[in-house]
Amino acid sequence: MLTEIIESANNKKLKLLKSLAAKKNRDKLGLFTAEGKRMVQEAAKYAKEGIEFVAVSCSFAKENKNLVKSIDEIGVSVYTIKDNLFNQASNTVTPQGIAAVVKIKDNSKADNDLSDISRVLILDGVSEPGNLGTIIRTAEAAGIERVYMMKGCADIYNPKVVRSTMGSVFRVPFVRDCDVEMVKLLKSSGFKIAVSSLGESIGIHEYAESLDKNDKRAIVIGSEAFGVSDAVLGLADVCVHIPMQGRVESLNAAVAAGILMYLL
Amino acid sequence: MLTEIIESANNKKLKLLKSLAAKKNRDKLGLFTAEGKRMVQEAAKYAKEGIEFVAVSCSFAKENKNLVKSIDEIGVSVYTIKDNLFNQASNTVTPQGIAAVVKIKDNSKADNDLSDISRVLILDGVSEPGNLGTIIRTAEAAGIERVYMMKGCADIYNPKVVRSTMGSVFRVPFVRDCDVEMVKLLKSSGFKIAVSSLGESIGIHEYAESLDKNDKRAIVIGSEAFGVSDAVLGLADVCVHIPMQGRVESLNAAVAAGILMYLL
Repeated sequence: MLTEIIESANNKKLKLLKSLAAKKNRDKLGLFTAEGKRMVQEAAKYAKEGIEFVAVSCSFAKENKNLVKSIDEIGVSVYTIKDNLFNQASNTVTPQGIAAVVKIKDNSKADNDLSDISRVLILDGVSEPGNLGTIIRTAEAAGIERVYMMKGCADIYNPKVVRSTMGSVFRVPFVRDCDVEMVKLLKSSGFKIAVSSLGESIGIHEYAESLDKNDKRAIVIGSEAFGVSDAVLGLADVCVHIPMQGRVESLNAAVAAGILMYLL
Repeated sequence: MLTEIIESANNKKLKLLKSLAAKKNRDKLGLFTAEGKRMVQEAAKYAKEGIEFVAVSCSFAKENKNLVKSIDEIGVSVYTIKDNLFNQASNTVTPQGIAAVVKIKDNSKADNDLSDISRVLILDGVSEPGNLGTIIRTAEAAGIERVYMMKGCADIYNPKVVRSTMGSVFRVPFVRDCDVEMVKLLKSSGFKIAVSSLGESIGIHEYAESLDKNDKRAIVIGSEAFGVSDAVLGLADVCVHIPMQGRVESLNAAVAAGILMYLL
């Protein structure tokens, strides 16, 4: 339903939109924002039931009448906001003029059910939002069936992470705020825990060759600065590294994760 | 040689430093900047002869006396600049307070000598600076022996590209501003030209298996938005793709490049 134009900075919807930049508000309200044309379209396609409302700037509404109409037609409320107010609420440097407010999924029930999956990714302290989003996007493409994010990772609902996923946030099954118990459960359920490490380890090509196609696999990626935590390292079945020539000290975390997911 | 403190916005060294943000000035003067502690240390290690001078902010000089002394001791002039002036000349949001001005290498003589190399990367329109730098970094680690950048790529000497290489800019052999003649030369010299393409193509795992270890290989990565140009596509021996599951439309360019370089 298209509503009147929001012209007051005190409007409740506008204030809600703004407030979701902070994790504590996202967690309290169970909501996050997906900003930009592409992301709102992905939300409408893959998380329609979860959309609380869509906000557009006046300019965007004028220039994208068909898109706004199509969102309205699937039963989502669309609020139009004065350009300067929209831009103040935006989380991007150059706001496109559209954002969706979406419910955070409660996937706690799925956490412990490992019966139907055999390839998972564990992220232990990936803290750079762009890296985290790109890894989630690559994980979907690589056929990873569940992504576990341990405490210390960036929040997947951080606006920059959401954008970097290019929509995968709405499709990849994931679990937030895991602790080491989750890794123990995976291990005791027969998953081979392969930890990416710059320390003593075997090359990924060699490890890939040793795998049987029926092996259940968990790949662990550590923090950009500190690697994998000792608690998780202690549960590793194998430590693996990506062979590096030249004088490179490390690969970009998202690139390394991509290579690992496509090789293992 | 440690010099007096630069306190005037009209100082020549300061103006030079500032001017190198623009490609036309870099090309005219044959100089570029490497900013940040890590990058200056890499320059001092791998491109010492090429350093024209190093500029540091007063605060940086005070807090990093040993580093500044070590740069001075290898015979590089260090200029100290008032903090606010340094920050104005900086190309980063949060300046660390140190930058080196470095000579652009003339590697035109090496362009056509293909006798000793067998693995090259061709970048055809990679335009996002962060992607380009990350790809150069990964190329070094993956053992790529030369990177060809075609017209339309971001400039490798763009400050953001330089930073994203994490030092590989000083070590990876590369050629800038190539055109399609370079690809023809590689092809006629026996390199198998494998073009990454979302169109009709074979999966990379399949192509990797078909390769003989003595095959000379060229991997081509296209622009983030438009892929590989028709001219280069016409020279392809094979088009390859990274298999993707889920609903992902594409991978991040730097991630895709990393997977291709480590698999082929």
